[in-house]
Amino acid sequence: MKRRLLLVSNSTLHGSGYLDHCQQHISSFFGKNVKRVLFVPYALHDRDAYTKTARNKFKTLGYEVDGIHEAADPVEAVRKAEGIFIGGGNTFRLLKSLYDNNVVAEIRKRVMEDGVPYMGSSAGTNVATISINTTNDMPIVFPPTFSAIGLVPFNINPHYLDPDPNSRHMGETREQRITQYHEEPDTPSVLGLREGSLLLVEGNKATLLGSTKARLFTSGKPSVEYDPGSDLSFLLSDAR
Amino acid sequence: MKRRLLLVSNSTLHGSGYLDHCQQHISSFFGKNVKRVLFVPYALHDRDAYTKTARNKFKTLGYEVDGIHEAADPVEAVRKAEGIFIGGGNTFRLLKSLYDNNVVAEIRKRVMEDGVPYMGSSAGTNVATISINTTNDMPIVFPPTFSAIGLVPFNINPHYLDPDPNSRHMGETREQRITQYHEEPDTPSVLGLREGSLLLVEGNKATLLGSTKARLFTSGKPSVEYDPGSDLSFLLSDAR
Ligand SMILES: [Ca+2]
Ligand SMILES: [Ca+2]
Repeated sequence: MKRRLLLVSNSTLHGSGYLDHCQQHISSFFGKNVKRVLFVPYALHDRDAYTKTARNKFKTLGYEVDGIHEAADPVEAVRKAEGIFIGGGNTFRLLKSLYDNNVVAEIRKRVMEDGVPYMGSSAGTNVATISINTTNDMPIVFPPTFSAIGLVPFNINPHYLDPDPNSRHMGETREQRITQYHEEPDTPSVLGLREGSLLLVEGNKATLLGSTKARLFTSGKPSVEYDPGSDLSFLLSDAR
Repeated sequence: MKRRLLLVSNSTLHGSGYLDHCQQHISSFFGKNVKRVLFVPYALHDRDAYTKTARNKFKTLGYEVDGIHEAADPVEAVRKAEGIFIGGGNTFRLLKSLYDNNVVAEIRKRVMEDGVPYMGSSAGTNVATISINTTNDMPIVFPPTFSAIGLVPFNINPHYLDPDPNSRHMGETREQRITQYHEEPDTPSVLGLREGSLLLVEGNKATLLGSTKARLFTSGKPSVEYDPGSDLSFLLSDAR
């Protein structure tokens, strides 16, 4: 299992610039051997503008960026990629575009079999997991399935948000939403990654990185908090 | 067109009990001729407990409640219904159950052709519209389509929430989410119903009721605020 993943909760932390809060993790994740990163901007409407944003940031870290939408054949672009970064935006739009462009299976193969490093942020983290069932996004388009690339066998909830005791709003809290998910049969664990959190996966080892704790929800069990630095490798084999 | 709809943003307003804030509207909507209301509890996991909650409240208003899940044949229950109330919870679970139980077309027929009054709250309001594309809920199950009962030709966003200028959270605001929806082609208007708002539809007349303004989002146009009492009938013919 050659899998290497950097799954980021959010691309921008309040008060800092695009990917600033995790740039050292990005540099050590892609390392010196990767020169070019294939960027997937499908989650936002303006793919050119989004690719420019990613390109400008990655340039400061020493990497060239190719937008997958700039390639004549997106599957071929995945086949040749040295590294992959899928950015955030709307998860439904992103997943539908991944299927429309026939790249889901090819990305899975490249990451799981060839060890191509995969970085995801927000929606790009959702689609790396078993399914998009725990995205926060609005279902603005209908994808052919909620099953995703499946690089890990559990779910992630990015931008995880604690209940606000002062709120007068009566919509479900994030915890209530995840609890509703776990009322459904055979639903895997959900790792709530607060803004500022990242999960690094290397083969069968998973480590929580970043500046905040993460909260793990498992069906039928009390939820558990994990500090940055925690070993979460058990999630890779024991998702239920 | 006999359609009569009472589309409520939220079942419970902060600081008051279940359906308290709209109980006078409920009484005048179902009136004296309706004796029994068919309740659809599909949006929550515990259908019996949910039906009990609705039954207790409607009893204080003079109506008996039948849970659709208690009927041997849910389609037959819709055929015999004097009035329908679909409660809130998870919109994806609700829509999937409506399709699993084959009641979508029958509810549409009863409301549009026979004039059976339809009340929806939150998720029950989402499914009354053209589609569930503008629900706030988590996609915990995969419905066969996002197309809904289609009693009105536009979308509603229940629990509409204004951006919080003090928030440090970087997830999309509600307005940004609806804007992303309108980046997609041929998307209808979205009526953002704040908590405390209701929309009453009688034939081809639509009136905003309740205690708060509503915000209307139309693709390619600036959004517009409407006061309680506003005539929104134009939405019934001119959804784009
Ligand atoms: Ca998003
Ligand atoms: Ca809900």
